[in-house]
Amino acid sequence: MDDIISLQVGLDARSYDIKIGNNLIANAGDLLGDIIAGRQAVIVCDSNVASLYLDALASSLARVTRRCDRIIVPAGETSKNMKVLADLLNDILDFGVDRGLVIVALGGGVIGDLVGFAAASLMRGVDFVQIPTSLLAQVDSSVGGKTGVNAPRGKNLIGAFYQPRAVLADTATLATLPPRELRAGYAEVAKYGLLGDSSFFAWLEDNGKAVLDLEPQALNHAIMTSCAAKARIVEADEREAKQRALLNLGHTFAHAFEVEANYDGRLLHGEAVAAGIGVAFALSVRMGLCKQGDLDRVKAHLKGQKLPGDNRELIAGNAAAERLIAHMQNDKKVLDGKMRFILVKGIGEAFVASDVPLEFVHETLEGLD
Amino acid sequence: MDDIISLQVGLDARSYDIKIGNNLIANAGDLLGDIIAGRQAVIVCDSNVASLYLDALASSLARVTRRCDRIIVPAGETSKNMKVLADLLNDILDFGVDRGLVIVALGGGVIGDLVGFAAASLMRGVDFVQIPTSLLAQVDSSVGGKTGVNAPRGKNLIGAFYQPRAVLADTATLATLPPRELRAGYAEVAKYGLLGDSSFFAWLEDNGKAVLDLEPQALNHAIMTSCAAKARIVEADEREAKQRALLNLGHTFAHAFEVEANYDGRLLHGEAVAAGIGVAFALSVRMGLCKQGDLDRVKAHLKGQKLPGDNRELIAGNAAAERLIAHMQNDKKVLDGKMRFILVKGIGEAFVASDVPLEFVHETLEGLD
Repeated sequence: MDDIISLQVGLDARSYDIKIGNNLIANAGDLLGDIIAGRQAVIVCDSNVASLYLDALASSLARVTRRCDRIIVPAGETSKNMKVLADLLNDILDFGVDRGLVIVALGGGVIGDLVGFAAASLMRGVDFVQIPTSLLAQVDSSVGGKTGVNAPRGKNLIGAFYQPRAVLADTATLATLPPRELRAGYAEVAKYGLLGDSSFFAWLEDNGKAVLDLEPQALNHAIMTSCAAKARIVEADEREAKQRALLNLGHTFAHAFEVEANYDGRLLHGEAVAAGIGVAFALSVRMGLCKQGDLDRVKAHLKGQKLPGDNRELIAGNAAAERLIAHMQNDKKVLDGKMRFILVKGIGEAFVASDVPLEFVHETLEGLD
Repeated sequence: MDDIISLQVGLDARSYDIKIGNNLIANAGDLLGDIIAGRQAVIVCDSNVASLYLDALASSLARVTRRCDRIIVPAGETSKNMKVLADLLNDILDFGVDRGLVIVALGGGVIGDLVGFAAASLMRGVDFVQIPTSLLAQVDSSVGGKTGVNAPRGKNLIGAFYQPRAVLADTATLATLPPRELRAGYAEVAKYGLLGDSSFFAWLEDNGKAVLDLEPQALNHAIMTSCAAKARIVEADEREAKQRALLNLGHTFAHAFEVEANYDGRLLHGEAVAAGIGVAFALSVRMGLCKQGDLDRVKAHLKGQKLPGDNRELIAGNAAAERLIAHMQNDKKVLDGKMRFILVKGIGEAFVASDVPLEFVHETLEGLD
């Protein structure tokens, strides 16, 4: 193992550490310490990740656990539903488990969300550990406790706020990610700079290529800074009553693109987020809140990283503005009928706006000048 | 409306009031005040309760809500499963709801548990109100935030701790309960005296018949005392790390009887609890912890209320001791392989024991002298 960066998410009795480093999976048993030693564990991973890392993880955990079983679920977003959740819970129960169980989620965002919700619901809550294997999961979905599955009406509409006991982000796993998925995950990295840390965004303008080339120092810095930013926001507002909403920069638009693309795999979540961030900046410029120069920097950076900078640059998921707005109105972030948007006063200065005239949204999505 | 008794469950930001009285359903809109005024609501009830109270509740809520829809699920324990939960969530989402929604659970324990878990899971948590219509639900399952559904492996194995925003216990609904269900609910009332309040049990010895005859003063006192006892325990230990386990007096045995009876409706939960309480006292006597005289009082009282006093008096659910013990070992209350029992030092003096020799359990279930 190289050096390991450790970072705490401070939530009182539910606080936990995120460990970031190379080759953590093969040492997970030791790294997790008391969280897993002597206990019964079940590893849940998807069929893609299973062939790459499951044996290494299971060997490491078997050395310290009382018993360690494995469950493999089909890869892909389609596994994030109530039927797969029910089957997963029954499969875990069939091992003869009790409340002392620890569930280990090994995989990307889909696995983390599904397994986290399973852990929240099994016997009204058992411990779980996140071992995210995609950049998106390492910098975003594995941290902060949002878990859940999709409903026919939309993404993540069923779930729980439920914190893991630990997160191990093994950067070695990123070398096996398809480049397009790596870039998609990078959209969430850029998001942290754009919503609240202009110096981090400036650093990304200089070092973003090194991050995508998986140069260790740049990669670790990007993941650590992203996780720390998310941790600080989650600590201040775990249940998204206030500033946690800033993490949704670009996401209201992104969800609309994803609904339009029907979650059929043509459009990756991070690609939708990249385009959504670009649209949020463009909308902010249109409303006179943000300088054109900031929008230009954002779009140039996304383009440099081969990410879409607005809805018209999407491979899939674009549609007439009215249709996209209708999708947004079904989003769960709507409260008492009011749509909220995350807008910006500039790079690193996001805020929540609930009084955005829909004509501005319409014009922005249509790309009108 | 007659006088209303109001009682707070104090859980900081999640505190809520239990209101107990006659004819509350027809006045629910006013009684719920800010919790429901101006908001979107969905009432969920079962097919039995729908014909009795749904119109009255919906009319009262419609006067104050922005919109009020209704969903009816099939009556009975078989509705407490993941499939019905998923359908219920999708049906609610189809009304076009957002996080400002309030879900109202109207019915007995099955509805409260199912709908509470739906509220916990919908958009990671929306407000819900409990309007329990059975004695069991009014004194036990509607208070304290345990929600969930059954799995093929056992009861309540999937769920969440999730508190309602309010509970309205309308005692008028008890007049339409089948007498056998009323008696079964009474077992949980007696439980509160037996686990921690010997003077309440002595009061029940004198007034238990009046409670089952629905004499208003006795009924209100029994419900209020039961809810207050549960509230104090839940306040001290919401997630059952310590003394909340005392509420499970009789329940480890009861679950075994219910598994044996296959949840097919022959055995009511409260009947299983009554027999389980009797067995817990008998086991405590066998272990030299409790006086025979206390066991005799418990059995005499249960018999007087036409409730079973041990497993051999059950209509369904009895079996060889070994078989019942095997069911208990699958219970979710088992922790790291150790079975825990709630035993007693006497009436009103329950405690948690994790070192009970199984031969004593075996002999007690076999009724050996």
